[in-house]
Amino acid sequence: MAPSQDIDSLAINTIRTLAPDVVQKANSGHPGAPMGCAPMAHVLFSRFIKANPKNPTWLNRDRFVLSNGHGCALLYIMLHLMGYNLSMDDLKQFRQTGSKTPGHPEAGHGIHGIEVTTGPLGQGIASAVGLAIAEAHLAATFNKPGFELVDNNTFVILGDGCMQEGVQAEAASLAGHLQLGKLIALYDDNHIQIDGDTALGFTEDVIARFEAYGWHTQVIADGDHDLEGITKAIEAAKKVTDKPSLIKVRTTIGYGSKNQGEEKVHGAALGEPDIIEVKKKFGFNPEEKFHIPQEVYDFYHKLAKKGSDASEAWDKLFASYAKEFPELHAELTRRMNNKLPDGLLAALPKYTPKDAPVATRKLSEIVLNKIAPILPELIGGSADLTGSNLTRWKGAEDFQPPSTKLGTYAGRYIRFGVREHGMAAICNGIAAYGASIPFGATFFNFISYALGAVRLSALSHEQVLYIMTHDSIGLGEDGPTHQPIETLAEMRAMPNILNFRPADGNETSGSYLVALEARDRPSVLILTRQNLPHLEGSEIEKVRKGAYVLQDQEKAEICFVATGSEVSLAVDTAAELAKEGIKARVVSMPCWELFEEQSLEYKMSVFPDGLPVISIEAMSTFGWDRWAHVCIGIDSFGASGPYKDLYKKFGLVPEVIVQKAKKTLAFYKDRKPDSKLRHPLL
Amino acid sequence: MAPSQDIDSLAINTIRTLAPDVVQKANSGHPGAPMGCAPMAHVLFSRFIKANPKNPTWLNRDRFVLSNGHGCALLYIMLHLMGYNLSMDDLKQFRQTGSKTPGHPEAGHGIHGIEVTTGPLGQGIASAVGLAIAEAHLAATFNKPGFELVDNNTFVILGDGCMQEGVQAEAASLAGHLQLGKLIALYDDNHIQIDGDTALGFTEDVIARFEAYGWHTQVIADGDHDLEGITKAIEAAKKVTDKPSLIKVRTTIGYGSKNQGEEKVHGAALGEPDIIEVKKKFGFNPEEKFHIPQEVYDFYHKLAKKGSDASEAWDKLFASYAKEFPELHAELTRRMNNKLPDGLLAALPKYTPKDAPVATRKLSEIVLNKIAPILPELIGGSADLTGSNLTRWKGAEDFQPPSTKLGTYAGRYIRFGVREHGMAAICNGIAAYGASIPFGATFFNFISYALGAVRLSALSHEQVLYIMTHDSIGLGEDGPTHQPIETLAEMRAMPNILNFRPADGNETSGSYLVALEARDRPSVLILTRQNLPHLEGSEIEKVRKGAYVLQDQEKAEICFVATGSEVSLAVDTAAELAKEGIKARVVSMPCWELFEEQSLEYKMSVFPDGLPVISIEAMSTFGWDRWAHVCIGIDSFGASGPYKDLYKKFGLVPEVIVQKAKKTLAFYKDRKPDSKLRHPLL
Ligand SMILES: [Ca+2]
Ligand SMILES: [Ca+2]
Repeated sequence: MAPSQDIDSLAINTIRTLAPDVVQKANSGHPGAPMGCAPMAHVLFSRFIKANPKNPTWLNRDRFVLSNGHGCALLYIMLHLMGYNLSMDDLKQFRQTGSKTPGHPEAGHGIHGIEVTTGPLGQGIASAVGLAIAEAHLAATFNKPGFELVDNNTFVILGDGCMQEGVQAEAASLAGHLQLGKLIALYDDNHIQIDGDTALGFTEDVIARFEAYGWHTQVIADGDHDLEGITKAIEAAKKVTDKPSLIKVRTTIGYGSKNQGEEKVHGAALGEPDIIEVKKKFGFNPEEKFHIPQEVYDFYHKLAKKGSDASEAWDKLFASYAKEFPELHAELTRRMNNKLPDGLLAALPKYTPKDAPVATRKLSEIVLNKIAPILPELIGGSADLTGSNLTRWKGAEDFQPPSTKLGTYAGRYIRFGVREHGMAAICNGIAAYGASIPFGATFFNFISYALGAVRLSALSHEQVLYIMTHDSIGLGEDGPTHQPIETLAEMRAMPNILNFRPADGNETSGSYLVALEARDRPSVLILTRQNLPHLEGSEIEKVRKGAYVLQDQEKAEICFVATGSEVSLAVDTAAELAKEGIKARVVSMPCWELFEEQSLEYKMSVFPDGLPVISIEAMSTFGWDRWAHVCIGIDSFGASGPYKDLYKKFGLVPEVIVQKAKKTLAFYKDRKPDSKLRHPLL
Repeated sequence: MAPSQDIDSLAINTIRTLAPDVVQKANSGHPGAPMGCAPMAHVLFSRFIKANPKNPTWLNRDRFVLSNGHGCALLYIMLHLMGYNLSMDDLKQFRQTGSKTPGHPEAGHGIHGIEVTTGPLGQGIASAVGLAIAEAHLAATFNKPGFELVDNNTFVILGDGCMQEGVQAEAASLAGHLQLGKLIALYDDNHIQIDGDTALGFTEDVIARFEAYGWHTQVIADGDHDLEGITKAIEAAKKVTDKPSLIKVRTTIGYGSKNQGEEKVHGAALGEPDIIEVKKKFGFNPEEKFHIPQEVYDFYHKLAKKGSDASEAWDKLFASYAKEFPELHAELTRRMNNKLPDGLLAALPKYTPKDAPVATRKLSEIVLNKIAPILPELIGGSADLTGSNLTRWKGAEDFQPPSTKLGTYAGRYIRFGVREHGMAAICNGIAAYGASIPFGATFFNFISYALGAVRLSALSHEQVLYIMTHDSIGLGEDGPTHQPIETLAEMRAMPNILNFRPADGNETSGSYLVALEARDRPSVLILTRQNLPHLEGSEIEKVRKGAYVLQDQEKAEICFVATGSEVSLAVDTAAELAKEGIKARVVSMPCWELFEEQSLEYKMSVFPDGLPVISIEAMSTFGWDRWAHVCIGIDSFGASGPYKDLYKKFGLVPEVIVQKAKKTLAFYKDRKPDSKLRHPLL
């Protein structure tokens, strides 16, 4: 049946009847948002979004982010209509194990058209700010008169939940400052959240707040029907080029359902009886399930044709660009292809033990100074700790709106402000855009503020570099509020992320090398405030294995494994033991995750049978039982004082560790321990 | 020397010359904020703040929060002037190991006058919202005509850093909705943040934003001098009783220093030459260090006398209240004394294996229904997941401004909105106020959004209950964006917090019991979405030990240890093994931290020598090597699908675990393993 409706109504009603079927079959999911947002989604996709489903990674496509990701039945339906790699069968597999249509949209898992992962509220709008930053930056870097290679819009739909999250507030404030004119957000203002009416706890004036941030704002009173109003508002938003735009669209959640406008339609299937009524109401055959009228397919496929024409035109433009600007063309091509420039390894500084001690945050700055000029895709900054994180390389230009006279959009140094969570979500957006490698920096302890987004870097396979300094009690006087204890354990327990805690100059260089080469996962660089000596035995390339024998003695009786600032402590302790004729091996483990990925043979060569292992790390011992027979660390909060006092207070000095090593040796005297790698399930 | 200045100037200049001395001696810290905020701090403490340093826990004292906690030299100086337990010697020990004057203010560590921990930016203002909620609630609950027992103000100073943090935005939005008229915040608007001028990235209109939240706002153009303006603004703010107040005070960071108004004075000692000039400028003897003119001491001690008079008057009022309202008096006394009501244990539901399976989130709801009536100090709510977290007990009234007609301030159920981080920080404030036990709820995965504040619950010894449901892949279809994997490892690695993952009804009751009895640390209750059977062998009181032998067989050959939903899986697996004649012990470990605190003897009785231990937990295995020889869990992200499918997909079914158990037995056949508790350093 193809009801006699104008094509817009037919398309919208298709969404409004299909979404309940999708959710009903799964008997799980959220029909309310798709039904309420169908008009704005249809207007966006049919009248504005420029994309080619057959070339889904086309650089200059418009980006669409469904920030209220729980409404993903809508997104999956739109992608299916547009002709992305998402079939009707996939819609029928909604929320089933192994399907292409999980409960929330997951970027980085091969489903085209999903730009960033959403669902955890506030992430989508914040990452969209990153998408818009990437666009502005690449446009300023590569566009030339007559060659508007990069000029796409970033469109967002977000709901009340996103509007209440701090990560959204942080990113929206920065977006206003940055005057990101190509960012257009539609706020699905349906007055309903899970607990009920938004009157329960969300009565702020959202429009006034966004005005305060410097956004351009508009209101659509009847978002259930006023397609022309939505259209004009988006057109007006596009014309405002020096401000991001917020369009508040008043809608009815679950529009068409018997419980429309109520919380009931938010997060549960409507039930067959209601679905039958919905279909009748919209002129659809109530007996038919998963029905898309052919006219709607035809209409959307025609749009897709427009999109593919645009993308082909762009290919031609890019080909002419190659002639006019061969170097820029080669550069952008390299970056789009995710190819690192040559010469990275050669550029990285190497050190010998004769070099003076340096803090790894400072060594990181030296690396950044070396690589920034040859790695133009590196773009990022600090959450207002530039002088402490040491993340701004010499000659860096700020990423700023030109009108501020503080930088330009071609600048690569982002002043994130004290917005750690927003920073991480923005980095996800920049990475998702492509052709850039973003980084964000703060004190390691404050990665806890940003974990909601860091987790999505890992889940979405985004290459983001988190440069985290002041990594332990070694930061000293700032005290326990700023000293990470549990932080590294939490990062190590997170899947698909590399955590580097380099011990010296070579390991810092090596950590950057491996982090840059890891194109499909994020990395955390965990760096000291205090100076560290350069160690005998460290090498850049050894970082690749995650852990390695740094120093050894024939017939070593005991083994220390340590990371970062505690590796030199292990070396010093080994030297003390040597004075008493006790032979120790020292293992440096700059990256736990990479070591886990090595062959058993290699791992057993580092931690062989019969050799008691003592781990030393100036934070929680949690997790170290995996490798070590004895774990030395700090299982309480830290303290405020000069860092050398603190190391002493917490027993992280050779004289204390020597005693523990001797006890360990005595304990294992008559019964050498198995390697911790010996395992019943190997 | 006592310069001839009016007493206000003298006091302010005392702060402005003393703070640089404090920071200089430590050669570490932040002189800029104390020098810039001296006028507003002096006005607040000398003209407004009602407090009795000799009775620092007086319930009705005004609360003061220095949200820009890095400026704590200011706070310590004010507390010293007021006569709190903080001496001049303590000021000289600023930022030294073991001193009472750490690098950021730490509540819960015996330094009176520090209401909440600050330093991690945004936390102070957000916790202040909690302090104001507690005040409003206790006032509505206990005040009677003629007995305004609770009517204190909460005063806050916050800076640009706090203003950029999402946690601040979340809490400020809610404070506006809640019309918290006794909350008065002074915004130290000095246009400087660490990276430089706020023009770099913070150009929003803060006043307009707070207006949008529903705050009353005022601006002081010259906060360096305009004491009368600040005074009048605070007076005006006090008169506005249905809105929180923001007073933007334009100041000069490091006022009086040669680099005043620049970032340089933010976070490093001024240096002796500059300090000499500062002292000259303010008419102080440049040779004298740590100098407080006697007039200033006298002036402040007179204020302290006013405070002690007020607190004594309150004691008398409270004594008359005892006669008029003996029950309320007894109740408030009990609550102020941190005494739990009688009958808690008796009220907790008990179960037998014959009872039908129930989700632990539902069991939590049953507990809340039982205890809410007898535990009136329990106050809290959910971050907009009430129907999923099941945290609203029958008959609960919402904590709402009466004008909303949605509740009253006597209500105990808080609609936090989708504001996890704000919620946790607010709970810290409610706990810090005293006489209340706050709780906050969301999905367990989204405690990651709130960690910045949860960490401060632990660091500050605040009793906050975090009720976290949907605790694993067992939540099913919502998928990996919502399924915790690393989350429990991170919580276990955090010091001073109890994490409970109960396996059934008795353990849920027991977890609440122990969490409520833990008056000086937070607890996390980690609860399932899916139903679980009630287990043979579980008892409420067994939770106290953290882990216990739930089921056993004589000469058990293998031991399973599990938590929460995986305990019944372990039981089922043991039953499968029994069919093949293999005897297994099952240990339930509802709280890792409590088990760690038990005697070695007890722990060895649970995990004795010779018994291979297999851990089963449907999340990261990180950390389990501490107890188990084999760790079964999920070390990747989860998946979207019905939960039974997911348990199968990840091998968390008896048939898979049986195979692993057999391999483990084979491995240890000829060499029984030591208990993991055997340890060289015991
Ligand atoms: Ca909504
Ligand atoms: Ca400032």
